[in-house]
Amino acid sequence: MRDGHIRLAHGNGGRFMRELIEELFARHLADLAPDVTLDASPFVLPAGVPHVTVDGFTVKPLEFPGGDIGSLAVNGTVNDLAVSGALPLYLTLSAIIEEGLEVALLERVVSSLASAAAKAGVRVLAGDTKVVPRGHGGGIYFTTTGIGIRPDGVDLGLGLVRRGDAVLASGPIGDHGIAVMLAREEFDMRGNIKSDCAAVTALAQTAIAHGARFMRDPTRGGLAGVANEICRATGLGLRLSEDQVPVRDEVRGVCEMLGYDPYYLACEGRVVAIAPEEAAPALLAAWRTVEGGEEAAIVGAVTAPPARVVLSTSAGGERIVDELEDDPLPRIC
Amino acid sequence: MRDGHIRLAHGNGGRFMRELIEELFARHLADLAPDVTLDASPFVLPAGVPHVTVDGFTVKPLEFPGGDIGSLAVNGTVNDLAVSGALPLYLTLSAIIEEGLEVALLERVVSSLASAAAKAGVRVLAGDTKVVPRGHGGGIYFTTTGIGIRPDGVDLGLGLVRRGDAVLASGPIGDHGIAVMLAREEFDMRGNIKSDCAAVTALAQTAIAHGARFMRDPTRGGLAGVANEICRATGLGLRLSEDQVPVRDEVRGVCEMLGYDPYYLACEGRVVAIAPEEAAPALLAAWRTVEGGEEAAIVGAVTAPPARVVLSTSAGGERIVDELEDDPLPRIC
Repeated sequence: MRDGHIRLAHGNGGRFMRELIEELFARHLADLAPDVTLDASPFVLPAGVPHVTVDGFTVKPLEFPGGDIGSLAVNGTVNDLAVSGALPLYLTLSAIIEEGLEVALLERVVSSLASAAAKAGVRVLAGDTKVVPRGHGGGIYFTTTGIGIRPDGVDLGLGLVRRGDAVLASGPIGDHGIAVMLAREEFDMRGNIKSDCAAVTALAQTAIAHGARFMRDPTRGGLAGVANEICRATGLGLRLSEDQVPVRDEVRGVCEMLGYDPYYLACEGRVVAIAPEEAAPALLAAWRTVEGGEEAAIVGAVTAPPARVVLSTSAGGERIVDELEDDPLPRIC
Repeated sequence: MRDGHIRLAHGNGGRFMRELIEELFARHLADLAPDVTLDASPFVLPAGVPHVTVDGFTVKPLEFPGGDIGSLAVNGTVNDLAVSGALPLYLTLSAIIEEGLEVALLERVVSSLASAAAKAGVRVLAGDTKVVPRGHGGGIYFTTTGIGIRPDGVDLGLGLVRRGDAVLASGPIGDHGIAVMLAREEFDMRGNIKSDCAAVTALAQTAIAHGARFMRDPTRGGLAGVANEICRATGLGLRLSEDQVPVRDEVRGVCEMLGYDPYYLACEGRVVAIAPEEAAPALLAAWRTVEGGEEAAIVGAVTAPPARVVLSTSAGGERIVDELEDDPLPRIC
C-alpha cells in the first residue's frame, strides 16, 4: 500500500478502508489512543469547565517550511482551546482525502500530526476518513475538534477589556502566511521564512498567570482581524504602533514586493493578549522566557471610542487598519 | 448575500466571512447555541461516561429524497453515539465550502441541519467554515464531532457477543444508498425510495433496555460490513437469512437491474443489534413500537467459527458474504 496512491475504494467501508486505517492512521496514532473498532470513544475529563472547538484545514501546499497540514491541524485547534484558557486534552480527526493522493505523502502528514499531538499533550480519540474523486478535493482536508478543560477560576473575555489596557503579541507576525505563500510554486520566490506553527498552551497559561484579560490567536485575518474584533465587541478603539509590532525583515520584504499588508497575515503559533497596563511589563518578561515567546512585544493599547484600529506609523503619521475585505492570501490554514 | 454565490473572500477571516457566519450559520443555529465570537465554547456534561465520535460527509448530490448533507451530518454522528449506548448531547460543525456554491443551497442544508439537530436533541456548540477554490471541493463537505454521555451501567461491546445470539435489523436495508444513487443525474432512473436518514437514539435505548449486547449502524459497507466486522472481532461465524432480511421491493429491483448487492448498501437510520436469543422476540416487539422500527426483523444468528458471514438464500442454498473490496456506490455518506 505504501508505494501506491489513494483509490476511491479506500473510502468505501470495506477491506481497503480498514487497511488504510489500521496500517496508516492507527499505526501512527497508536500511542495516542484510538480503538478503531469503536463507533464512539469514551474519555475522562478532570475537574473544571469543559470547552470544545473545531477547525477545518485546507492549506495549500500540504507541506511548507516549518510545518504541514498535519501539524497545523493539531496546533490550530489546540490554540483555540489554549487562548480560551483551557488545557487541551483530546482531539478528533476527520480526513477528506482526494483520489490519487500519494500514500507516502499522506503518511508523512499523519506522522507529523501524531508528533504535534504528542508535543501538545493531546490524544486523538476518534477519527474518520472519506475519499473523494480526483478533482473534488485538495489532496487532504483535515478537520479537528478539540476538547479541553478550563480550570475553575480562570476568567477571560472581551467583556473584561478596558480602556488603557496594553496589547501584547507573543512574537513576530506573518511568518506562517509568508512561509506558506513562498512554498507555492506559482510564486517564483524563495525564502528562509518558516511557519510559526506551534502550540501556544504554555504562552497562554503564562498570560493567565500574569493577569491577561483576553487572548486570541491571530490566524485568518491576522493581527488586524483580532484588533478589529476587539473594537467591534467592546466599542473601544485600539492603537497599534508600527515601531513596536514585530515583523521579520524578510516578511516585510516579501510584503513590500507583493503589496501585502503584514497585519492581515495569519500566524499559527502566536498569541495576542490584552492585559492591564500595569501588568504588561511582567507578562512581557515572562513570555520572553517561554519557548516561542522570545520575541514578544507590547504592540499597542486599548483607547477611547470610536471603535476602530489606528496604526501609528514609523514615519510619524497614522492610518486606519480596517477589517479585511478581499482575500490577500487564500488557503493559508 | 442570499441571491449570490460563495466567494473565496467568504473564507478569509474578514468581513465577508463574518457576515456569512452571522447571517447564515448563526441565524439557523441560534436556538442551538453558538456564540460565534468565542474561540472555544464551554459546555456541561451530566453524570456518566463521556463519549466522542467524528464523521466526515461528502455525499453527492447534496440533496436527495428523504434528506440532504445537513440532516445526514447530524444523524450520522448522532447515530455513532447512540449505538455506543450514549445519549447524544452536542455537536461541532466544520464546513468546507466550494467557491461558486449557491448561497441559497447552503442555506437550505444548514436549515435542514438545524432541524435535524433539534429533532435529535443535540446542540451545535462550535463551528468553522473554510472556502476552497472552484474545482477543489464538492460544493459542501461537512464534518461533525458528537459528544454524548453513556449512562453508568450500560455495557455494550463486541466482547459480549456469544454463539447463538440473535442478529436484528431495525428496518429495511439499502434505502439510503439507493435513494442517493437515484438522485444522481448520471443514472437515468427514477424511483420513490427515500433515504432512511434519521436519528436512532430511541431505537438504541430500546435495544439496551431489552438486553442488547452490541449495536452498530450499518452505514458504509452496509449490513455485510457490520456482519464481517463482528466475525473478525469475535472469531465467530454469522448466518443471515435472505428471507428474513428486510429489503424493499424497489431497492431489490434497482439492485438487480444494476448488479448491486443490497447487503453492501448504506443505511443512515438503521440499527443492527446482537442480543441473546431468548431476549430477541421482546426486543423485536419493542422496536416495532418505536418510530423508524416498524419494519424491524430478526435477520440471523451468531454461529460457531469459522469467522465468516454466510447467507442462507431464498432458493435454499448458501453463499459467503465477504467483506467489501471494490466500491459498489461511492459517496453515499
